[in-house]
Amino acid sequence: MSASGHNGGSAEDRLIAKHFAPIARHPGALGLTDDAAFFAPPAGCELVLKADAVIGGVHFFPDDPPDLVARKALRVNLSDLAAKGADPAGFLLSLAIPREIDDPWLEAFARGLAEDAAHFACPLFGGDTDRSPGPIMVSIAAFGTVPAGRMVRRGGARPGDVVMVTGTIGDAVLGLRLRQAKAPPPGLEAAASEALIGRYLLPQPRNGLAAPLRAHAHASMDISDGLVGDLAKLCRTSGVSAEIAVERIPLSEPAQAFLRTEPALLRDMLTGGDDYEIAFTLPEERVAAMREAAAAAGMAVTAIGRVTEGSGPPRFVGADGKTLEFEKTSFSHF
Amino acid sequence: MSASGHNGGSAEDRLIAKHFAPIARHPGALGLTDDAAFFAPPAGCELVLKADAVIGGVHFFPDDPPDLVARKALRVNLSDLAAKGADPAGFLLSLAIPREIDDPWLEAFARGLAEDAAHFACPLFGGDTDRSPGPIMVSIAAFGTVPAGRMVRRGGARPGDVVMVTGTIGDAVLGLRLRQAKAPPPGLEAAASEALIGRYLLPQPRNGLAAPLRAHAHASMDISDGLVGDLAKLCRTSGVSAEIAVERIPLSEPAQAFLRTEPALLRDMLTGGDDYEIAFTLPEERVAAMREAAAAAGMAVTAIGRVTEGSGPPRFVGADGKTLEFEKTSFSHF
Repeated sequence: MSASGHNGGSAEDRLIAKHFAPIARHPGALGLTDDAAFFAPPAGCELVLKADAVIGGVHFFPDDPPDLVARKALRVNLSDLAAKGADPAGFLLSLAIPREIDDPWLEAFARGLAEDAAHFACPLFGGDTDRSPGPIMVSIAAFGTVPAGRMVRRGGARPGDVVMVTGTIGDAVLGLRLRQAKAPPPGLEAAASEALIGRYLLPQPRNGLAAPLRAHAHASMDISDGLVGDLAKLCRTSGVSAEIAVERIPLSEPAQAFLRTEPALLRDMLTGGDDYEIAFTLPEERVAAMREAAAAAGMAVTAIGRVTEGSGPPRFVGADGKTLEFEKTSFSHF
Repeated sequence: MSASGHNGGSAEDRLIAKHFAPIARHPGALGLTDDAAFFAPPAGCELVLKADAVIGGVHFFPDDPPDLVARKALRVNLSDLAAKGADPAGFLLSLAIPREIDDPWLEAFARGLAEDAAHFACPLFGGDTDRSPGPIMVSIAAFGTVPAGRMVRRGGARPGDVVMVTGTIGDAVLGLRLRQAKAPPPGLEAAASEALIGRYLLPQPRNGLAAPLRAHAHASMDISDGLVGDLAKLCRTSGVSAEIAVERIPLSEPAQAFLRTEPALLRDMLTGGDDYEIAFTLPEERVAAMREAAAAAGMAVTAIGRVTEGSGPPRFVGADGKTLEFEKTSFSHF
């Protein structure tokens, strides 16, 4: 992505200069007037690298507000940086846009991107824009920094660790269901429905917890494909299992209200994607410090179980002592 | 992009473990078993960052060989790293694939990617794969390293500098034309036609020239959107103009043969995209050293003109002393 200045250049150059150059505030981005950007990590730090794309009609609805599409595309990457204990440093953007996308759409998209880039201190470093015969596709490659060797891995969980999650679980899958429905289900207030849809449209990445996770967590990953499946991945990579108390899994008020109207939704909430909370494990003696750090960051963390010896998927145990079985453990595009 | 090992996980995990994990040879990629990767630049170095995507039906034909699609997608990014004087370090991949793409296609795609990742010492660090209702889209974010502060910019050209280009100019646009034609034009041998098509299908990024460009060039950029337009960008960003001797622009034997059958093609060759050669400027006294370094790397560099004072686009002067006028100076998707 490069713009050639305001005194000439192609339509693509002008598009970039108008909409995206203002988001490229790092000196290394050279105002998007070059073919690449440069970045030096702070002394003693290394980079954490992540790329994730969102596609219209797959990860969002083509008529979702463009500013939210942009923010979601960035936030799904920021969420991974948070889970890895990395502080956001910047991102690259590849944008494929259908012909029917017009300037007001791009303006709103760029506005949303600019807001989040500023809020999360994660400026644009470059990328490219193309017209595409297909749906909108927003590919973002984000990079963050950690003190050398301190990226929090998926594979570090140890038997005896406490399993914790941030925020509340299952809101986004309920929000998606409500977004697809013509009207909220009977018994669910409009405000609750809107809150859940909001959780689907706009993830809240937990970047405020990056430093505490680095300090305290043995293993961590963000829950983008559902708690059950993602925790299974964490356990598998760590060579452990876990036991989770289902009644301790934190649910939001709106989710609880929806659940009362349709109790069978619980399984969807535990296996559905798009939560963008973080699941992590840490030794018992670090739990208090972690809670304190989370409270200081204005975020909730909740202990939901224990890491155990073994190699099977985590057991999700209900209040009745019975283990829940899941047919489909996580979201997959394939 | 993460695979959870071979004993479970989703179809996406298995696809990644099978096709892409073998390309992720850097320790920081963690075999694609984590949610992100880490990378520490060598001491005294900083990162150069670039993202560029290719889309089926836009940048390549849907029936192009999948290994070449993969290699082209990586190489268009490697070309930018080369022009900036950066040594490749790794890349992230976001792959959107239509339902009809099958396992043999992916296998060939991954094979091509693996070959180039090894050849250019640029391993895969992560990314994601999605099924898409649209065309294939291959988004790559590549990163390289340069000694701190030594990225070769677009904006450094100075009046009096010699303008040089690598390789030969205009082959790819001729290759594209031949790729679209049903049969080679009369008077052009099949071997020449194939050579030009090959130049369109598979760029030859000049990564062997990264160190000499760092050592000698004042300004540099890769020619992805046509020599005329890209050189205009370089001049504009540098606040200079240039005078180019058209007859000194290096043309390949096959391109010369094609040109003899249709002399009007010259304009297309000078303004057409996809060459992925490098245009750069350097002081006269560095030209000999640059030529020597290029010869040592087995690559051609040719002086084609001079940087001049002023702010207009470069003048392309023919053997008859007349300045060529171009209606459309470079390729643009918009």
